[in-house]
Amino acid sequence: MTRLRGFLHPKTPTGDSSLIPEPPWHYSGDLLTVEYRTDPARVRELLPAPLELAEEDPGAVALIWADWQSCSTSGRELLDPVLAQYKEAFAVVRCAYRGRTYTRCVYIWVDKDFAVARGLHQGYPKKLGSIHQTRPHPYGPAPRLAAGARFGATLAAADRRLAQAVVTLREPSEHNGFVNSHPMAHHRWLPSIEKGGGPALDELVESGAASFEAGQPWVGQAELELFEAPTEELARLEIREPIAAYYRQVGVVWDGGRLLESRTSDTR
Amino acid sequence: MTRLRGFLHPKTPTGDSSLIPEPPWHYSGDLLTVEYRTDPARVRELLPAPLELAEEDPGAVALIWADWQSCSTSGRELLDPVLAQYKEAFAVVRCAYRGRTYTRCVYIWVDKDFAVARGLHQGYPKKLGSIHQTRPHPYGPAPRLAAGARFGATLAAADRRLAQAVVTLREPSEHNGFVNSHPMAHHRWLPSIEKGGGPALDELVESGAASFEAGQPWVGQAELELFEAPTEELARLEIREPIAAYYRQVGVVWDGGRLLESRTSDTR
Amino acid sequence: MTRLRGFLHPKTPTGDSSLIPEPPWHYSGDLLTVEYRTDPARVRELLPAPLELAEEDPGAVALIWADWQSCSTSGRELLDPVLAQYKEAFAVVRCAYRGRTYTRCVYIWVDKDFAVARGLHQGYPKKLGSIHQTRPHPYGPAPRLAAGARFGATLAAADRRLAQAVVTLREPSEHNGFVNSHPMAHHRWLPSIEKGGGPALDELVESGAASFEAGQPWVGQAELELFEAPTEELARLEIREPIAAYYRQVGVVWDGGRLLESRTSDTR
Amino acid sequence: MTRLRGFLHPKTPTGDSSLIPEPPWHYSGDLLTVEYRTDPARVRELLPAPLELAEEDPGAVALIWADWQSCSTSGRELLDPVLAQYKEAFAVVRCAYRGRTYTRCVYIWVDKDFAVARGLHQGYPKKLGSIHQTRPHPYGPAPRLAAGARFGATLAAADRRLAQAVVTLREPSEHNGFVNSHPMAHHRWLPSIEKGGGPALDELVESGAASFEAGQPWVGQAELELFEAPTEELARLEIREPIAAYYRQVGVVWDGGRLLESRTSDTR
Repeated sequence: MTRLRGFLHPKTPTGDSSLIPEPPWHYSGDLLTVEYRTDPARVRELLPAPLELAEEDPGAVALIWADWQSCSTSGRELLDPVLAQYKEAFAVVRCAYRGRTYTRCVYIWVDKDFAVARGLHQGYPKKLGSIHQTRPHPYGPAPRLAAGARFGATLAAADRRLAQAVVTLREPSEHNGFVNSHPMAHHRWLPSIEKGGGPALDELVESGAASFEAGQPWVGQAELELFEAPTEELARLEIREPIAAYYRQVGVVWDGGRLLESRTSDTR
Repeated sequence: MTRLRGFLHPKTPTGDSSLIPEPPWHYSGDLLTVEYRTDPARVRELLPAPLELAEEDPGAVALIWADWQSCSTSGRELLDPVLAQYKEAFAVVRCAYRGRTYTRCVYIWVDKDFAVARGLHQGYPKKLGSIHQTRPHPYGPAPRLAAGARFGATLAAADRRLAQAVVTLREPSEHNGFVNSHPMAHHRWLPSIEKGGGPALDELVESGAASFEAGQPWVGQAELELFEAPTEELARLEIREPIAAYYRQVGVVWDGGRLLESRTSDTR
Repeated sequence: MTRLRGFLHPKTPTGDSSLIPEPPWHYSGDLLTVEYRTDPARVRELLPAPLELAEEDPGAVALIWADWQSCSTSGRELLDPVLAQYKEAFAVVRCAYRGRTYTRCVYIWVDKDFAVARGLHQGYPKKLGSIHQTRPHPYGPAPRLAAGARFGATLAAADRRLAQAVVTLREPSEHNGFVNSHPMAHHRWLPSIEKGGGPALDELVESGAASFEAGQPWVGQAELELFEAPTEELARLEIREPIAAYYRQVGVVWDGGRLLESRTSDTR
Repeated sequence: MTRLRGFLHPKTPTGDSSLIPEPPWHYSGDLLTVEYRTDPARVRELLPAPLELAEEDPGAVALIWADWQSCSTSGRELLDPVLAQYKEAFAVVRCAYRGRTYTRCVYIWVDKDFAVARGLHQGYPKKLGSIHQTRPHPYGPAPRLAAGARFGATLAAADRRLAQAVVTLREPSEHNGFVNSHPMAHHRWLPSIEKGGGPALDELVESGAASFEAGQPWVGQAELELFEAPTEELARLEIREPIAAYYRQVGVVWDGGRLLESRTSDTR
């Protein structure tokens, strides 16, 4: 009797083909965060019930670029780094659920398939994109992590530029921003295979880092631009007021989350 | 009250951001099919219960390259072809379920995110890859669809070549092979967000083309090679005996399928 | 004594590593041509002496998308099509040299390194880009070559869209446009390795197809848009008046050209 | 009268379109170096006269991975990092010319067009490839620069893996290896546009860093594998004896070189 293994497809007797390994997933990365305020109505329109606008500063948005190296507990992906390295850019807002404040990723682009697949599990609405961010370096023209250092960050998808930022650091900071600082409240949705059927999967899930270590955050300011595209709506989160920008190096472990609600139809 | 639209994530009030549109999905494409026999035990080990080996020719495999242009019913993706064009290579076998023969895709690689997302819905175990196949052309050195014409096809993923074939056409054929000629029996799997939980989604689904038109198939023979890779097991479907190879241009509509079984845990 | 072979670098005793093979080079491809008039001053500013504006219709521009399969005389690249297939988009104008009219490519983007290298030899000012064009197909939603058929074409480089067009075919045509119909007059330039030195190579060369076959051209009209980018000046060739648009399938052989002038400094 | 500007093509009145800016070029990067000995005959066969084998240790090879951020003196490329960041992998050997020892790059792959173009100027025989190397990081699973740290490095081109290495660091080192430590002796070759003509450009040039700063090198050992491919000959530099492996972060300025010899035919 065949016993198929693998955290995700394709499943095989060994499990070696699975697009992603079983959690925990381990990450080393650099985060470039740009926070600003948009019209809260533009945030609200992206929150399905029962999620509501956060009470405080409901129009706050963070657009975050991340340059990751990630792996399973074995660490083997780091030694064949095409399987470990990826970049992403994502927009998060805050929301309220049963009186608690959550962070919610409303748009995200990554540049590897394994990152797309992890997002599927975690409820991140991932597409593929082309993502770049300046990396600090101790020698040559690239910036040090220091006052006045400037970092560029860009996002494109489907051959169109969607966002670009230039961040200028000012000083060390006590935190790395406030929009991405709560547990994540995400949906995992999949339609029924049957035409006109209800959702096969409709879950509201919560998750966050199982462990976290990080370096000194730096704060500064950003020049941020968002661009229209026919199949993207990031630019609807229009920039009303800049808040601040941050740079931080982090190490993170993700190891599963918690089901908050499931609305999958009973008739399935 | 926010009403979110979109066949898939990210969902917004307009639905314009959805990674894929609602079916039906329309396809124009060229298929290069290489059929061969492997050890039936290698097929069986990829079939989860209640699927069983097909009764006739249970070790038959088809490795298929496809060069697609696809779109929603509006057809608008064809006019921004980065949103319409993609290539794929996939391995299918046959299996039996409740006395009926099905085709099942056991491995598949595509080169666009919207194709990954469609596979998620349809139960194709998609990864990203780099796929190439020679295209027929009426002028210059590229082959015509004619006796003696030769077509190359290659597949790579994670910077490793996984398969390559050279197909030489011999004559028109009455069919385009037999392995990929049944309804598809696929699983849609997603683990629980909770560590150690059962599957959140575990469906066996059936689907096939809602409509199909096609040109004259050509048959010939292939030189096919499969290569080992640490995170791929395509080469375990080792080539014991070549069957034949085919070339055909097709137009297809896909418009949903049917749920055969769902084993999602009740405790969710 | 080592004898190094190879039409281009890297050179080795076998010549097998050369980025491109010795000409003749053979091509099968589909051309989507959009002709329009710009301010002739914008053409003149791209013509170095002794090239001059063409006498007739000096502001005519053709922006051409091409979807190629190419190979050496052996044809072997076609069987490993990652080595044969590439796409390009390029802008050509006309100019006069010693009383004769030439076509000149002023901007061009391709998506493979061997195509970049060929351009180096032929004097095409190639950069890498992401290029897409709708392909005709006999089945499914993709267009046939017929009245009313619509084809999209897009160009991006460095993660920014630079041009997009939608071409609607009207009827068969007696020709495929007039801007790209002359021999090419190109420069081959390379600076001296020594700082402040004159050019190491500064040649004006002529070339054209050694042989040519082609299908029925179709004519229609295009909606064309050009977009600004910090490191590109295609949009300076602004659209003043549309001329026409064309679709044609061609087979071409290129087999070298002719040196018209060389201004390389004598002091080298 | 049109005055065209631009260090390289495409040339325009502003020079803004040039694929590469005028030197000096500034670089920040991480180098992963794997040194080994091959059969000196395999080195000699890649050295055109008047270059000769180095007297000492003539079979020494260094295969180097580099993860770069580069820019013109303005530094503006760093703020749109798709224009600044690239990766490369290259093989260097040593050779003798007029009694002096030089380093020579015999094979090199990069992943951006501006890097290809710089190589054209500097005499590096560049192709496009897919290059990955583990990056050190202070947090999470990625390695620190410390004893026992392990770094993976891979190279692929045309959808085939060409080389892979796993480097384990042992201790700080007084140097970063010896093969890549001399001025570079490179050829700049371009064939005549005329069929059967001699070379239009055939220069032997010397260059090196105009300035250099660097961190503490670390030394260790590598497991290195080279793979055959139909259009590559890197694997002919077969591994006879490992020497050592190194990791170092550097800042470099390149600002032109010196012409050693030019053999361009007089008849041009």
